[in-house]
Amino acid sequence: MKNSKSNTISDIARKAKIASIELANADTKKKDYALFLMAKLLRENKKEILKANERDVKSAVGLSKAMIDRLTLNEKRIEEMALAVEEVMSLKDPVGEVTGMWKRPNGLLVGKMRIPLGVIGIIYEARPNVTSDSASLCIKSGNAVILRGGKEAINTNLIIAKYLSKALKEAGLPEDAIQLIPVKDRSAMLEMLKLEEYIDVIIPRGGEGLIRFVVENSKIPVIKHYKGVCHIFVDADADIEMAEKICFNAKVQRPGVCNAMETLLVHRDIAKKFLPLIGKSLKSAGVEIRGCKETLQILKYAKKAEEKDYGYEFLDLILAVKVVKDIDEAIAHINKYGSLHTESIITNDYKNGQRFLKEVNSSTVLVNASTRFSDGYQLGLGAEIGISTTKLHAFGPMGLNELTTTKFIIYGNGQIRE
Amino acid sequence: MKNSKSNTISDIARKAKIASIELANADTKKKDYALFLMAKLLRENKKEILKANERDVKSAVGLSKAMIDRLTLNEKRIEEMALAVEEVMSLKDPVGEVTGMWKRPNGLLVGKMRIPLGVIGIIYEARPNVTSDSASLCIKSGNAVILRGGKEAINTNLIIAKYLSKALKEAGLPEDAIQLIPVKDRSAMLEMLKLEEYIDVIIPRGGEGLIRFVVENSKIPVIKHYKGVCHIFVDADADIEMAEKICFNAKVQRPGVCNAMETLLVHRDIAKKFLPLIGKSLKSAGVEIRGCKETLQILKYAKKAEEKDYGYEFLDLILAVKVVKDIDEAIAHINKYGSLHTESIITNDYKNGQRFLKEVNSSTVLVNASTRFSDGYQLGLGAEIGISTTKLHAFGPMGLNELTTTKFIIYGNGQIRE
Repeated sequence: MKNSKSNTISDIARKAKIASIELANADTKKKDYALFLMAKLLRENKKEILKANERDVKSAVGLSKAMIDRLTLNEKRIEEMALAVEEVMSLKDPVGEVTGMWKRPNGLLVGKMRIPLGVIGIIYEARPNVTSDSASLCIKSGNAVILRGGKEAINTNLIIAKYLSKALKEAGLPEDAIQLIPVKDRSAMLEMLKLEEYIDVIIPRGGEGLIRFVVENSKIPVIKHYKGVCHIFVDADADIEMAEKICFNAKVQRPGVCNAMETLLVHRDIAKKFLPLIGKSLKSAGVEIRGCKETLQILKYAKKAEEKDYGYEFLDLILAVKVVKDIDEAIAHINKYGSLHTESIITNDYKNGQRFLKEVNSSTVLVNASTRFSDGYQLGLGAEIGISTTKLHAFGPMGLNELTTTKFIIYGNGQIRE
Repeated sequence: MKNSKSNTISDIARKAKIASIELANADTKKKDYALFLMAKLLRENKKEILKANERDVKSAVGLSKAMIDRLTLNEKRIEEMALAVEEVMSLKDPVGEVTGMWKRPNGLLVGKMRIPLGVIGIIYEARPNVTSDSASLCIKSGNAVILRGGKEAINTNLIIAKYLSKALKEAGLPEDAIQLIPVKDRSAMLEMLKLEEYIDVIIPRGGEGLIRFVVENSKIPVIKHYKGVCHIFVDADADIEMAEKICFNAKVQRPGVCNAMETLLVHRDIAKKFLPLIGKSLKSAGVEIRGCKETLQILKYAKKAEEKDYGYEFLDLILAVKVVKDIDEAIAHINKYGSLHTESIITNDYKNGQRFLKEVNSSTVLVNASTRFSDGYQLGLGAEIGISTTKLHAFGPMGLNELTTTKFIIYGNGQIRE
């Protein structure tokens, strides 16, 4: 055991790298058995976990109520964590899948096979459930994981990680494949972000501040998602009732999440009919509307939107509204103010629907559906490790496949290059 | 026109970003017409290009003969550049392709559509043909490109880029989508590597020194490839004649490239039969063999291998040889000394072939074929923008598809989230 902390973080990462090589070739059965044991051990040791969590909550002086709520575990939440691990167990193992194979004129059979990325670093905030969620997704996809949770949750996370590692060991897999950084201060995170020889990718999960800090300090590639400024464009010949239902859902069902609508764009030709309808239901749900000049003429009770309201992520019951003259203006607005997250068009115009899907280059683009579907589970990925709003490697919600890459595999029978 | 250089580099990148939005939605026909015109203009203006190239070659004082050869153009080489552009024109446009679509229980149709990455920065050395090769691949895949060629070739590259941009304009596409950094010194490159708001990915093409410099100084993700230390493992029951043919090809056909064999691993049970055979043909081709103790006992004329010869990229008629006791030792050796580039096994053992393909996690793994096939054209990608030996986004030879990402597109009929 090395003495300086510097060696410790590096040792942790090196051990994860070594474990990742063994894990990359582990049988699906063994990995699933480990996940089964993880859920079992979480349930069996819930008292110990809750006790550690109590210590964390007691130390959480000065944190906001919302933060403390995120930090706090109870029996129900631990059961949900165990169920989430079992859900990952039931997903298809992506490793070893051959995603395509073709024959070359010289007879070579060339294919692409999915393999794990290697070692994944997850950096997150107060929620202890991210520890088991992330670890189970990484293990199922054959990756080792280094977890760096919020300092508020360190006691809880240490106990959870201990049992996750124990499950690996009992299943005959390398226990070092799940590592938790046991140090509270930021210097440990900074050190972790430099270890490019051991860590293949960093996925930060948290607010914009955390993500910017990680991006600015990392030598390792970061898959990131700053914010979700999602737009809905209600086109001239939208089904008005469908538009009302979808816009209400996108704004009100869960306003504090990244795939909630933040700006509504309405075609001028439908504004007089549509805005009073959606305005009424939003008002009754307590949504504050901040509109452009034309919006204000139709909705007398709306507030005037400032320039900064467009492109702003309210994460609250506030909505920016703008009347636009056509789909071109709507797309231009989204290109200017959007965050490449999720946008939807409500329309019965075939051409406009297709055009919106093609020309809006956000990570998720919908026709006649709520932006709230931009989520790994909802899209059928089975699970979600995060959302990427940058285009390299993955764009949009990320599931197990996005924790893999592909290598070329080639079957020959003696071919040489002429 | 801004005065300071600082503004100029940033202006170039900003213009490329704006052009990339238009180009992302350009018709295949228009892009192909632009490529047709590029080839035409290269041919029509070859005298001007050759004149500029003459100036560069004259200024190239103190460069090695090999470097000057790479820099020098002639009529034949310009014709080859034009043909390469026409070859890219004939490839399938990846943009807009829907790579999969599935139905959710609620009736949503969820698909993934290929879109361009945006703005690609290419940093390269003396070869002027990289200018037209890279630009044509980026344009075909709907990306804007910022080219930063070697300072030795600046006059040649400026003329070539001028005609490539002209072709875009004549085809009705934004001429700003091809940009060449017109400044010789490295500070311009350093500045380019900071412009993450405008440039989506950097692809360096050149020697290990250039690539390390780019990686260490870039805020933008870099798709990279340091070196190719390729191995062939000749298993106990390999077809000896096939093994000899493949090993000879992998070492001798073009020793200076990244997919040439650098280390040969031979199973102990076949070493006495195989090593004299391959030794003889390699010797006759002037290959220096550096072997382990057991190799030296069989090949008296071989030199003794030092530890540093394993894992070394000779790029020359030199080969490290090691006798191993089984496939486990071979795989362990590759894991320890390899560069994740390309490895091949020669075997008639079904299980060993499958195991090698599965367990060796290099970007290209072959059974019974030469490592020299690890190349975009040879694998059927149609072209190659580079090779990646890191796992994020792309792993192995990269073609047009690897210059794209996918977004989620969703067809609904009024779905909201419950």
